[in-house]
Amino acid sequence: MYNFQYKNPVKVIFGKDTIASISKEIPAGSRVLITYGGGSIFKNGVYDQVKKALSEFTFFEFGGIEPNPRYHTMMKAVEIVKNEKIDFLLAVGGGSVVDGTKFVAAATHFEGNAWDICQKGAPIKSAIPMGVVLTLSATGTEMNPFSVVSNDETNEKLSFGSPYIYPKFSILDPCVLKTLPKSQLANGVIDTFVHVMEQYLTFPNKAEIQDRWAEGVMLTLIEYGYDYVFKEFDYDVAANTMWAATMALNGQLALGVPTDWATHVIGHELTVLYGLDHAQSLAVILPGMMEVMRKEKHEKLIRFAKNIWNLFEEDEELLIDQAIIKTEEFFKSLETKTRLSEYGISENAIDDVLNKLKKRGEINLGEQKALTEDRLKSLLEMRF
Amino acid sequence: MYNFQYKNPVKVIFGKDTIASISKEIPAGSRVLITYGGGSIFKNGVYDQVKKALSEFTFFEFGGIEPNPRYHTMMKAVEIVKNEKIDFLLAVGGGSVVDGTKFVAAATHFEGNAWDICQKGAPIKSAIPMGVVLTLSATGTEMNPFSVVSNDETNEKLSFGSPYIYPKFSILDPCVLKTLPKSQLANGVIDTFVHVMEQYLTFPNKAEIQDRWAEGVMLTLIEYGYDYVFKEFDYDVAANTMWAATMALNGQLALGVPTDWATHVIGHELTVLYGLDHAQSLAVILPGMMEVMRKEKHEKLIRFAKNIWNLFEEDEELLIDQAIIKTEEFFKSLETKTRLSEYGISENAIDDVLNKLKKRGEINLGEQKALTEDRLKSLLEMRF
Repeated sequence: MYNFQYKNPVKVIFGKDTIASISKEIPAGSRVLITYGGGSIFKNGVYDQVKKALSEFTFFEFGGIEPNPRYHTMMKAVEIVKNEKIDFLLAVGGGSVVDGTKFVAAATHFEGNAWDICQKGAPIKSAIPMGVVLTLSATGTEMNPFSVVSNDETNEKLSFGSPYIYPKFSILDPCVLKTLPKSQLANGVIDTFVHVMEQYLTFPNKAEIQDRWAEGVMLTLIEYGYDYVFKEFDYDVAANTMWAATMALNGQLALGVPTDWATHVIGHELTVLYGLDHAQSLAVILPGMMEVMRKEKHEKLIRFAKNIWNLFEEDEELLIDQAIIKTEEFFKSLETKTRLSEYGISENAIDDVLNKLKKRGEINLGEQKALTEDRLKSLLEMRF
Repeated sequence: MYNFQYKNPVKVIFGKDTIASISKEIPAGSRVLITYGGGSIFKNGVYDQVKKALSEFTFFEFGGIEPNPRYHTMMKAVEIVKNEKIDFLLAVGGGSVVDGTKFVAAATHFEGNAWDICQKGAPIKSAIPMGVVLTLSATGTEMNPFSVVSNDETNEKLSFGSPYIYPKFSILDPCVLKTLPKSQLANGVIDTFVHVMEQYLTFPNKAEIQDRWAEGVMLTLIEYGYDYVFKEFDYDVAANTMWAATMALNGQLALGVPTDWATHVIGHELTVLYGLDHAQSLAVILPGMMEVMRKEKHEKLIRFAKNIWNLFEEDEELLIDQAIIKTEEFFKSLETKTRLSEYGISENAIDDVLNKLKKRGEINLGEQKALTEDRLKSLLEMRF
């Protein structure tokens, strides 16, 4: 196990009827900017709950944050923050709204071109405090110090991180998931599953708790995922799936172990170039990743096959074959496509994605830097 | 799943050669009081490492904290803190040293009789900041807001908790476990195992992540525990066991679920009355707890039998029998006694323990308050 440090200061408030508690969590007298996305919070009652909870505060609103939040959109929010002397941000939405708001929190205090935060990793020295009311469970951003922002001018989708952008609190009320479309619920399950895999499917590093906890999250998703997406709303099903998403990416599963975020890196390009949802891109890439990295990730793939899919095949390569099939079937069972051709994407994509990754120096990915250009090409080829 | 809130501000610094980093974690210019126990830190090199790391600080020392730290001992430390204007406490030791130091942190700022903190649950409004260099892994106190202190005048062993007594940081260097006696290592494994059981072995509450993570900790202990205690020091074995202990009681396994700390409550009496080590008392009580509560805890006992001990017996009562035997055998495999008679304790203990528990109102324990006086008596009787 590697050395590590861990401190996660986010206060999680989890459960039914918890939105009202934001009034106690935001410092009295704060000027609050509520940020949100396309307006679903007006339909599902969350906006009304938030507004009621903020009755003692002066608050402003900034809506229209896109899925894959855009730099230029978020900079408009930065202007409002500056003009209205906002001192607390309240993100009410899913991963995109939270990530966009984290960017606003950092960019407001940043001197110079704020895109440098993402593009050049420019250091963040402070940020406006923010809270979260989560309305879509998937990315884990509600309990971590990371954010992903897109720039349509430069055609980039980039991440940044800083301890300053940990939310002060995150409200997780599973009831808000009741009215989400099936496709978004499925995306949440797949995104969570892949987050776990990227912290688990590496070379073994004798970190038993981390491995078993990763397996615990995946098994929970397999147990509850289908019902979460397709059956009538059940509070406990939603609660378990929501908590799985938060626990998948609050940093704990990565402690002391190597990680491999290559599936996300490649997936991001599919989102930028072809507009696939984030999770859709992951469902396409992950099975290919398992296939082309089967040598380097052999031991963990065997463990994954046995502990996650209860497979008992004696021949280890057949065992891995079956584990890959099972994983792809799991994504399909959530009515999510797993092939580029299913999205009507032509084989030109292979070169297009490769070129973009090469341009960004994202070759030789993976915890062993073994995802070479050739293997990357094979990976993309086999996903048609 | 129940509603819950969670925030854990402890910074964990885990791994080899991490003790030196305390110099960066303690505010510059602090007057530090190092607290420790019987002096093992002088033999294992930890004291030298700490002293070197504190070369820029003014520091004082307070040694001699007992296993099961005593109120009167800790009040002597409070005096030093006041007289020397200490503003940072550094606990260098195991659970007892950390718990005792937490008490000092709270008692220094407490007005009135400080024993009221434990005995009357008197509220704590502030505490001196403290850090931890852990030298014995067991109680989980390094990442939680709880402490247990004994009072030999009143013959009490009582716990208290407050967010103010979270350590600011905890250094976990598995190398420090190298020179510990086998019995202390075994105690650590058993204490951790029982902590997990007390958050797991209740009625099921549809909290799948929590249940699976609890199982993950127990399976890790079963996998590594024997080697940890009896084989030559292996860094990864020690690291996994150490991390298991911290994760077992940092609050996460208890989120949204009922808990049942009855084994600890009864065990504490055995420690106070007969001087059993804390973990020894737990190894005696837990198998009896499983037996007398088999009706109320039926579902979880079945799950425990299958997921922890891989048992497949069709008859559910036989399955539970076997799980109880396996659990007791696990404790015995660590050369820890599991029967009161093995400690030379007479059957008078049944009434003595019962009377003490009754006097403290600790009857009808358990998450369903179903551990009645009769059952408690049966439990004690069957542990001879």
